[in-house]
Amino acid sequence: MSQATATMQQCIENCQHCQTTCSQMLTETCLVEGGPHVQQDHVKAMLDCVAACQACVDFMSRHSAFHDRYCAACAEICRVCADSCQQIGGMDQCVDACRACQESCSAMAA
Amino acid sequence: MSQATATMQQCIENCQHCQTTCSQMLTETCLVEGGPHVQQDHVKAMLDCVAACQACVDFMSRHSAFHDRYCAACAEICRVCADSCQQIGGMDQCVDACRACQESCSAMAA
Amino acid sequence: MSQATATMQQCIENCQHCQTTCSQMLTETCLVEGGPHVQQDHVKAMLDCVAACQACVDFMSRHSAFHDRYCAACAEICRVCADSCQQIGGMDQCVDACRACQESCSAMAA
Amino acid sequence: MSQATATMQQCIENCQHCQTTCSQMLTETCLVEGGPHVQQDHVKAMLDCVAACQACVDFMSRHSAFHDRYCAACAEICRVCADSCQQIGGMDQCVDACRACQESCSAMAA
Repeated sequence: MSQATATMQQCIENCQHCQTTCSQMLTETCLVEGGPHVQQDHVKAMLDCVAACQACVDFMSRHSAFHDRYCAACAEICRVCADSCQQIGGMDQCVDACRACQESCSAMAA
Repeated sequence: MSQATATMQQCIENCQHCQTTCSQMLTETCLVEGGPHVQQDHVKAMLDCVAACQACVDFMSRHSAFHDRYCAACAEICRVCADSCQQIGGMDQCVDACRACQESCSAMAA
Repeated sequence: MSQATATMQQCIENCQHCQTTCSQMLTETCLVEGGPHVQQDHVKAMLDCVAACQACVDFMSRHSAFHDRYCAACAEICRVCADSCQQIGGMDQCVDACRACQESCSAMAA
Repeated sequence: MSQATATMQQCIENCQHCQTTCSQMLTETCLVEGGPHVQQDHVKAMLDCVAACQACVDFMSRHSAFHDRYCAACAEICRVCADSCQQIGGMDQCVDACRACQESCSAMAA
């Protein structure tokens, strides 16, 4: 596997992990805990993150020439989602998944 | 346009309308109102409905031989979402969109 | 409905129409005709267009603060897809849907 | 992790691997090789498989009560895609990914 392919493969895996972590924590933590966990901005950040990761995986796995746009948007959204999770607390898994995904996506978008 | 094609086209449009209505009302009504609007079961029903409609549109527009499975699942999910919206109240647009989508999807799945 | 909302609603509809038109024509025209219709670049452009429109609809209907990134990417991809369809020929419906979607998405991304 | 959760986690990973393998091989093998690789039925099977896996991951990671419908449909579609890939040849990676995904999805749907 070339270096370019290995980097993309790692980014796909980080996006997949971030997508399922955000989706699971939204459903099993945020919607159970309520309060700040269900504030509009936080839930929108979580849903944006799930959708951004999904689109990123799709464009990268198709080796689309446009994958960099989706990686750039995903990096931004992951940062916002990680910050929101950190502020609310009790979302460490989500913070970690978003930070790792943000880093990979930034590298792919460069 | 043949009758079969016209029926599918109508179903695609009902799914598209249901998807965007649920997505908009989740964000702009449920996440603003809070209370019963952000109960786990209700939000999951709304998210399932958005995803079910999206998958349905995708399989129908590709004229997939498997579209009937996705229409059958979408009809079930739309019924659950419409019931949940009706019970909570203030979600009439969503109830109407889900009922219309449920009817079309049931017909496509038959 | 405010002007901003009406413009977004029109963009959502143009994306939905572009998504289903590209998906249907890929399956029912390109994969039947073969030849230039199944060249790697053309099929990738069609698949990118379907995915870009789907992501755009999702981010706009959630009123995401990041919808402009997805609209900007979709406008670019629609232009490439329209050009590819025009060059191959026999894809007028697709060209029209992509051009309309590109125009709406450019306006939303501005 | 409970047994139920471990089984679902494994199924999510098999769906993710199947989705990206099919998407990559469609773009990098089928659209390059042409001939039987771009027959309508084969490409539709590949696209159905990508979409089925994507929907499955989404419903499972949200712990949706309806995930079994999406797993059942995905199992069927993976079988069709694996058979199509086997018949065409040169698609061993895809066959393996589809078979593993089919097995997991069948178990989740039971």
